[in-house]
Amino acid sequence: MIWCSGWRLASAVSNAGGLGLIGSGSMIPDVLREHICKCREATQEPFGVNIPLLYPRIEEIVKVVAEEKVPIVFTSAGSPAKYTGWFKERGILVAHVVANVRFALKSQESGVDAIVAEGFEAGGHNGREETTTMTLIPLIRQNTSLPLIAAGGIASGGSMLAALALGAEGVQIGTRFAVSEESSAHLAFKEHVIKSGDGDTMLSLKKIAPVRMMKNQFWEQVRELEESGASSDQLAGILGKGRAKLGIFEGNLNEGELEIGQVAALVQNIQPVSSIMEEIIREYNQTAGFLSNLKL
Amino acid sequence: MIWCSGWRLASAVSNAGGLGLIGSGSMIPDVLREHICKCREATQEPFGVNIPLLYPRIEEIVKVVAEEKVPIVFTSAGSPAKYTGWFKERGILVAHVVANVRFALKSQESGVDAIVAEGFEAGGHNGREETTTMTLIPLIRQNTSLPLIAAGGIASGGSMLAALALGAEGVQIGTRFAVSEESSAHLAFKEHVIKSGDGDTMLSLKKIAPVRMMKNQFWEQVRELEESGASSDQLAGILGKGRAKLGIFEGNLNEGELEIGQVAALVQNIQPVSSIMEEIIREYNQTAGFLSNLKL
Repeated sequence: MIWCSGWRLASAVSNAGGLGLIGSGSMIPDVLREHICKCREATQEPFGVNIPLLYPRIEEIVKVVAEEKVPIVFTSAGSPAKYTGWFKERGILVAHVVANVRFALKSQESGVDAIVAEGFEAGGHNGREETTTMTLIPLIRQNTSLPLIAAGGIASGGSMLAALALGAEGVQIGTRFAVSEESSAHLAFKEHVIKSGDGDTMLSLKKIAPVRMMKNQFWEQVRELEESGASSDQLAGILGKGRAKLGIFEGNLNEGELEIGQVAALVQNIQPVSSIMEEIIREYNQTAGFLSNLKL
Repeated sequence: MIWCSGWRLASAVSNAGGLGLIGSGSMIPDVLREHICKCREATQEPFGVNIPLLYPRIEEIVKVVAEEKVPIVFTSAGSPAKYTGWFKERGILVAHVVANVRFALKSQESGVDAIVAEGFEAGGHNGREETTTMTLIPLIRQNTSLPLIAAGGIASGGSMLAALALGAEGVQIGTRFAVSEESSAHLAFKEHVIKSGDGDTMLSLKKIAPVRMMKNQFWEQVRELEESGASSDQLAGILGKGRAKLGIFEGNLNEGELEIGQVAALVQNIQPVSSIMEEIIREYNQTAGFLSNLKL
């Protein structure tokens, strides 16, 4: 949710009954502090911060979160062993994002409060195992009794219910909120995403670190390099810096890295968060009612 | 389900309350006829035949199916326009397997009775869009009102219920039956599959036609070729002929092509079909009961 989830989106989600997350991955420490303060002004409800642990200024980021007394963090893209204890000592709840069983067990050993299991269909950075939500959720459930949050492919009440049927206790919704009215993504990016269909995103850059993004001119360059057997250095060279900002925040649809989930094919409107939440809850209840009549 | 699903497996599934399918993709026409006859002796219930339309002796295969008055066919790997009308004229029900919206619409236009939507996590041949079951089922549901059967990642009552929550009316189960007692796969293959974990299968051979298989020595050779930018001819050369038979039917775990779904990571026993069906129904009912108490 880099370049999408600032204080506006996070507070809107919390105000609508979810747990809003500020995505710190695209923020320098001072900007993160500003978003936390503004979020606190905009909602009375709890909210959290997502922290990619590979962030270059990670030491400063975690300090900001602790100083601002953020109650919950979602950590990702790194070892849960490094900061979980540090956060827990400060009374902060920790959920860690994983894409395989090994890291789920590592998260549990590190003392996390919950696990987010993210399937292959999710947007942005992703696991090397390519395990989909349908397989990953029961697999992580089999291996831990910690609260489990499903991510990847969830944008409706039906898919939320599906995630619970697979063994999750909650869901993390990215793509649908990334194109909400309150998302800080560029309007051109949002409009491009809602018009997309199946097959329009691919997991790419696997030799560096797998990222799901929309097919565009930049993706095509990457694909050609990959098919010709390019090295990870060559790929890193074409990736450069700031590609995601260019695409998502500045709306350069050709040259930017357009990170988004596969479920974008199902999202067809730019809506306010409150409408999205109402729709999801209505669909969830309808589907649950319907299925309760389908006992075998 | 090539090299797995002969008359023993198909009749066992039909006898246990499912719709058993004979996989004709690994059978010459005479062998198919023999399996149909034996299946009919082994069950009073309806069963079907799966027909990959790219099969070299397809004209003979469809004739055998019609002559033997098989009531239902599941067609895959080819255009539904070619044989659907022919089957329908003979009173045979047709379900066509798709991995994207375009072929779902094409199936509908061709007059199929049902659509099987198969996600990225499924074993064997797969779509180029890499759309997972979690995304594909709601997407196909949005585009057609035909009966919809979900495939890929389904091996338990929980995942069956999840598929229905996503909008399917039924499920197609491959992997779990491929390692059942009644499957004709080699015991070494079955034992290898049930010991596998997450990340042990990958979608491979994408330059020819994507196939999900287990990582092994053969897969490693393919991967090295792919990463070095090999052409599809070079890949076809190493694939050769009979790789799937070698791995699945003859149990050569190093040199064979071990086609199986991602959900293999969740399958832990070789069981008779009747136990598998009982378990799935019990889990399905338990999960449905549990979820009906979770209305929001």
